Amino acid sequence: MLDSFFNPKSAAVIGASRESRKFGHIIFKNLIKSGIKVYPINPNTEEILGVKCYSSVLDINENIDLAVIVVPSMLVVNAVKECVEKEIKACIIISSGFGEIGNKKDEEEILKLSKGKMRIIGPNVIGLYDAYSKIDTIFNLDYRQERPEKGGISFISQSGAFGAAILDWNYKENIGISKFASIGNSIDVNETDLLDYLNKDDNTKVIALYLEGVKNGRKFYHKLKEMSKPVIVIKAGKSKEGAKASLSHTGSMAGSYSVFSSMLRQAGAIEALNEEEMFDFAKAFSILPCGKRVQIITNGGGFGIMAADAVSHYNLELSNIENTVKIKENLPAFASIGNPIDITGIGTSEMYKICIEESLKDKSVDIILVIIIMQVSSIDNSIIDYLKSQKFEKPVFVCMTGSEFVEVHKKVLEKHGIPVYPSVERAVKSIKNLINYINRKMQ
Amino acid sequence: MLDSFFNPKSAAVIGASRESRKFGHIIFKNLIKSGIKVYPINPNTEEILGVKCYSSVLDINENIDLAVIVVPSMLVVNAVKECVEKEIKACIIISSGFGEIGNKKDEEEILKLSKGKMRIIGPNVIGLYDAYSKIDTIFNLDYRQERPEKGGISFISQSGAFGAAILDWNYKENIGISKFASIGNSIDVNETDLLDYLNKDDNTKVIALYLEGVKNGRKFYHKLKEMSKPVIVIKAGKSKEGAKASLSHTGSMAGSYSVFSSMLRQAGAIEALNEEEMFDFAKAFSILPCGKRVQIITNGGGFGIMAADAVSHYNLELSNIENTVKIKENLPAFASIGNPIDITGIGTSEMYKICIEESLKDKSVDIILVIIIMQVSSIDNSIIDYLKSQKFEKPVFVCMTGSEFVEVHKKVLEKHGIPVYPSVERAVKSIKNLINYINRKMQ
Repeated sequence: MLDSFFNPKSAAVIGASRESRKFGHIIFKNLIKSGIKVYPINPNTEEILGVKCYSSVLDINENIDLAVIVVPSMLVVNAVKECVEKEIKACIIISSGFGEIGNKKDEEEILKLSKGKMRIIGPNVIGLYDAYSKIDTIFNLDYRQERPEKGGISFISQSGAFGAAILDWNYKENIGISKFASIGNSIDVNETDLLDYLNKDDNTKVIALYLEGVKNGRKFYHKLKEMSKPVIVIKAGKSKEGAKASLSHTGSMAGSYSVFSSMLRQAGAIEALNEEEMFDFAKAFSILPCGKRVQIITNGGGFGIMAADAVSHYNLELSNIENTVKIKENLPAFASIGNPIDITGIGTSEMYKICIEESLKDKSVDIILVIIIMQVSSIDNSIIDYLKSQKFEKPVFVCMTGSEFVEVHKKVLEKHGIPVYPSVERAVKSIKNLINYINRKMQ
Repeated sequence: MLDSFFNPKSAAVIGASRESRKFGHIIFKNLIKSGIKVYPINPNTEEILGVKCYSSVLDINENIDLAVIVVPSMLVVNAVKECVEKEIKACIIISSGFGEIGNKKDEEEILKLSKGKMRIIGPNVIGLYDAYSKIDTIFNLDYRQERPEKGGISFISQSGAFGAAILDWNYKENIGISKFASIGNSIDVNETDLLDYLNKDDNTKVIALYLEGVKNGRKFYHKLKEMSKPVIVIKAGKSKEGAKASLSHTGSMAGSYSVFSSMLRQAGAIEALNEEEMFDFAKAFSILPCGKRVQIITNGGGFGIMAADAVSHYNLELSNIENTVKIKENLPAFASIGNPIDITGIGTSEMYKICIEESLKDKSVDIILVIIIMQVSSIDNSIIDYLKSQKFEKPVFVCMTGSEFVEVHKKVLEKHGIPVYPSVERAVKSIKNLINYINRKMQ
């Protein structure tokens, strides 16, 4: 039944507006763009963007799969009542002014009306975004907030504003998203329901979750345990101070952080400390299972040293590549062959290719970390062409940092499924989390 | 004397080339762009880019302040000899093939020739960049590596490639730089000499230092101790594995990391774990000294909670703002007034302004952390106009994350000296380091 949220054939926007900056206008416009049939509901308006307006969903003859409610809080209960009467199966309540400010009464009334008949996301949410179906109820103007491209990560956020800002950042960082949902007060559909749904969703490979508190800890724990896909969690409200703030935000009781954190670990979920870690780790999970011996290949000595430091810091191992004959034949005399292999500043794309291929063949290597200083003129595009066109039998991670010129190449690699990190530390930390996850799941 | 490196009136490029991708060509072209007089030296060429070529610096009648040597290693000793004879005071040896591959003999010969007569940066370096004088000896093509704008951070890197990639990233992140120097094998001018020079440099407010090892630990320690400007250090080669790699990179003996790390702390320097931390911390030092009570103001509840968590995690304090009358009068009824102050998703620029001004007046507030979700349509540009035009009497840090739309506003604020961070955790960690530094310096 949750599929009506992400793949509806028709939708009604209750509180649709003619004013271009109003939420009811932006959402209506976004839904029209997705190509489905959308009905604007507003008793005071004849038409919006050339589409005939209705006073109530009850005035519409056709079926409606999804309702999006954007009216002021005092009008929400009645809107829900009409949606149930119209036999709508899925309803998003964008409006705020409920549990988060102590108004539990209306929430209970809404639940009583909808129970067993209609599923509800919200209230107090920014809604949904699905990069595949293009369903988009986010009420931020598109010039202010970009929407990310299609990808394998689904993202659930208790906070709407956090979700929206991160989606915008995802776009900038070329992080592809499958489904996004902001769940706010989650009086009905909650994080556990969505985990269940996303575990079966073909477009979702990894799930990222921003939580302040959970509705039912026991159910959440069991759902996490039975997930076949990796789940990465940010827990906000860890400290006394943060927990206090979260109470007035989405009305969540944060509970003891240390208990929550060890529960996550036991359930096989991965905890991230911030949004950067969350998506760094998520990227790593597009990769195959593997051991922990890392071969570093670099054309910048400094980054190579920092990577070796990080491998040691995160308790991974440097591999001991055995057959170095071909590498020695092809690298400059003063190149350093070991781990890191430093092809040096005059190293070429061809040298990278040889080092990668020898590392792929070598039994002592589990993972290959390729650091490329693209700024150096001896490196041409052919290393990118090579990396993007291979189906590697071992996980290959790439590190590169810089501005436009680097970003262009990074985008190409990520489109072809190769995770690229801007710092060696973030790459190695993500490798570490991938390995931890695999080990825990195999226990 | 080190000023001849950064502010020469004339320079010679020994090994200048007509071939557009060769180091000797790129450096020659970069130096010409700086507007100083530049002489190409190459016995096999008549002219380069329309400038008459000389066989040797000795054939030039005019004074030369700076020599940049780009010839193969076996020709370097002779080039140095001629530079000394020509009474050139500063010389950068770009060429590699010396101590880092065991060739100590030529290094000793070079030192013997130049001692007391000419200062040398290198060998095995990418050279210098000065955003003010525009002196630029970095041999990466400009379409591959951008140069950062003018700013208050000077950056010394033992690794050339690390330095170049980070400068490129600085450009993307709008991090302004004063002087950059890659010091490589540093047979003569080393990190300690440059600290001394930069401490007196008017354009330098903070110094960022990437080190694998130091030449003279005792001198380095004493110089750090007497510095009046903050110094932020990344130490690479912390682990056994990393230290081994650094030996073959710049020939540095890495030594014991724990000893080094506590030496830094005792000397009042700040250690950063990676390049992100290094420049995050550096940004914070553009700010005034202060206490540790932080007032958080946000229009996104989730980020507010995460910031409160970070304040607790880094042992700072949430301030207890006393006079909230004006704030209450002007914020939405369901806004949360405390710490964080959450003006909510319908909060306006005017509300931010009121909260900031009340926090500035309040004696319990030392630092203001303003989190702005710019994606929301209720926020207009006037908050940016307000922030950029004030001379705040307390440190104001800003957090915003997103893509293009956010980046445009971020750039405006940073140009006006307000540090902006993409995540609350990075902002709070940087505040923490600022306060630690101040406390240590005041002891």
